Amino acid sequence: MAQVLEPVAESIGLPGTPDFDSYPIRHWAVAARVEKGGVDVEWDDGSRSRFHPMVLRENSPDPETIHPVTREQARMLTEFPADLAATTAEIDAAGALSVRWSDGTDSRFHPGWLYASRPRTDAHDPDMEGMSDRVIWGGDLDLSGVRVDGSRIFEDEEQLARWCEALHVYGFAILEGVGTDRSVVETIPALLGPLRDNNFGRIFDVISKPDADSNAYTSMGLPLHVDLATREYMPGLQFLHCIENGAVGGESMLGDSFFIVEKLRREAPDLYEALSTVPLTSANKAVNTDYRWTTPMIKLDPSTGEPLEVRWNPWLRAPLTAKFETADKVYKGLRRLFEMGESPDNTVTVRLKPGEMLGFDNRRILHGRTAYDPTTGGRALRGCYVEREELWSRLRILARHRRAREAEL
Amino acid sequence: MAQVLEPVAESIGLPGTPDFDSYPIRHWAVAARVEKGGVDVEWDDGSRSRFHPMVLRENSPDPETIHPVTREQARMLTEFPADLAATTAEIDAAGALSVRWSDGTDSRFHPGWLYASRPRTDAHDPDMEGMSDRVIWGGDLDLSGVRVDGSRIFEDEEQLARWCEALHVYGFAILEGVGTDRSVVETIPALLGPLRDNNFGRIFDVISKPDADSNAYTSMGLPLHVDLATREYMPGLQFLHCIENGAVGGESMLGDSFFIVEKLRREAPDLYEALSTVPLTSANKAVNTDYRWTTPMIKLDPSTGEPLEVRWNPWLRAPLTAKFETADKVYKGLRRLFEMGESPDNTVTVRLKPGEMLGFDNRRILHGRTAYDPTTGGRALRGCYVEREELWSRLRILARHRRAREAEL
Repeated sequence: MAQVLEPVAESIGLPGTPDFDSYPIRHWAVAARVEKGGVDVEWDDGSRSRFHPMVLRENSPDPETIHPVTREQARMLTEFPADLAATTAEIDAAGALSVRWSDGTDSRFHPGWLYASRPRTDAHDPDMEGMSDRVIWGGDLDLSGVRVDGSRIFEDEEQLARWCEALHVYGFAILEGVGTDRSVVETIPALLGPLRDNNFGRIFDVISKPDADSNAYTSMGLPLHVDLATREYMPGLQFLHCIENGAVGGESMLGDSFFIVEKLRREAPDLYEALSTVPLTSANKAVNTDYRWTTPMIKLDPSTGEPLEVRWNPWLRAPLTAKFETADKVYKGLRRLFEMGESPDNTVTVRLKPGEMLGFDNRRILHGRTAYDPTTGGRALRGCYVEREELWSRLRILARHRRAREAEL
Repeated sequence: MAQVLEPVAESIGLPGTPDFDSYPIRHWAVAARVEKGGVDVEWDDGSRSRFHPMVLRENSPDPETIHPVTREQARMLTEFPADLAATTAEIDAAGALSVRWSDGTDSRFHPGWLYASRPRTDAHDPDMEGMSDRVIWGGDLDLSGVRVDGSRIFEDEEQLARWCEALHVYGFAILEGVGTDRSVVETIPALLGPLRDNNFGRIFDVISKPDADSNAYTSMGLPLHVDLATREYMPGLQFLHCIENGAVGGESMLGDSFFIVEKLRREAPDLYEALSTVPLTSANKAVNTDYRWTTPMIKLDPSTGEPLEVRWNPWLRAPLTAKFETADKVYKGLRRLFEMGESPDNTVTVRLKPGEMLGFDNRRILHGRTAYDPTTGGRALRGCYVEREELWSRLRILARHRRAREAEL
């Protein structure tokens, strides 16, 4: 991270920023000139940025352009002249970019915001900006990094931040010391954002039920899987709060699908290719619902080729209607993945204790359990889903708070 | 649809099917033989299907393979021998395919299920199988097709079916005669499936609010838009129940984005290409949330090239960081689309009456409103979201009920 040269300083006459964030000034603009109707800015490190006029005009931090309460764009694109151009541009005494537009309006831009909004040619992912890199892990993962004290999570933003960070980086976390109150499965995940309701209920009780509508509600062992593979958009985060775990068996298993599919890619690229290109249908038919979704098991980022999500579905496969040779590759690939999912080289096992809450990225981290014997003791988990983007929103807000604290120092 | 030759007939000794559906027999299998470990089936119309052994084996409708309560696969792929093969295959006296496997187990398959599960080489979309084609519409749409009587929707499955069908085919429907009870916004959409919670609330009141956290909660006119463009997965269906609409102004506008972007594709293919390839960031920053998502505005189906969704976002655009020439194409394309969105050639206008509920596909259908004057009367809508796949699940269940009724006749 570049050195922060100056804090945000309204006091020296810099314009506000058009949103709720603070933009520490990492570089000052030293010169500006009009070029093709847009604005060329030169920075104090000698680099230059060429801004399109509409990028600047529609983000002008004045109350006519950005609604002062909602901070959303209040002027529609079609309200500006199609040929809108900058007529003059300069860096003023306070260090702001000052622009006069061809329609007679004026804008001033804060240099911290301007630098953050400059055109970028590198292949950065703007949605992951400022976030830690993920750690892809195998069976040798040291669990100390994912165990987080949650005893004061409602009051202590640092505990919340550590929990969010582990969820993002490792794709899972075990929050300790949260007690066994039945409401906890709702109130702690809600620190991230709203819960995702689904046909199994907004909160679901993972216990053995006589009329199970899912293998999860039996005492069967469950091999590694993701939840709701039958949905276009699988739930992003799953939370399982342990209330009771006294039965023989019932250990929790976790695996990083990104680690496992990478092994397959190296070992058998043709099978990896089949699983990342052949559409497979996941289907869950019940008396009153009939969900299905058809897509390749491994979803790749089209720009990087890296996995974005893995639809690891051991028991909700609709009949594969691909031709024989394709089906053969798919089944060979699935078998190899499922075999790897059974190996301790690729999985970690934890026994959840009452008062612990396991959370994981359901689009990346596989979860399962060993069979348990309900005659030897009770096993009761309560679960819910929250979207992954709620985690990211929370991480951005926590980072914003951190920046604000830094700016005050 | 092919003629149904025989009803499902357990009575003549056919095996059950592995799920909750009925499979009318449209073709009988007339011959079967083992081929490369799989099974070749000849149908009564002379066509042939070559089944991979694992497709058949893991879908065998016996209680050891498919859990009799959950109807999910109870045996894992890795439990079957990797070299599992059919050793004998025949069509038995009842018309079922009877297979003996190399591990000594046997399976029997119902011919209706078998035909529905045959390998397919045509480019059909299995998730849309049996559903009506969508109608893409412009400003001349006859609204009679989208107005549906909802006065008995809780009791009358035909009303429910007509509503679902309109929502699917036209992407929107106006349900009439549902009254003005404030609970209706929750109970009627719940006929499809669970509501999608979000940061504006599971149920949101679209009224003018003093501390609006969205332009929607002002009395401003709202140009066509989609909701929650800042989310990876925008809500599939939105419902707006009209409680009161007495103010001057406040008409509802709707447009079919698939119709409008197709016009752009014909008129300016380079701008269409920019909007379907250049990543744009939609961002919604608030005091306690910071949502953003970066993706091209127009999402195309990679196999057909047709639009799957349009992220039509007039006022939540983060600064575009693309280079100047790219930004220029993006802004030209956006401007042209937004201009078309203002033309009655591409939109329909309705004035919602108290007791009507507007529902629309938020990933396809654009919605907006004219400004209203809150001093002239009240305007109160209540809204919620439900995923599109809940609609599809409901359509499949309604079709299943119809097939069951046909089978009884």
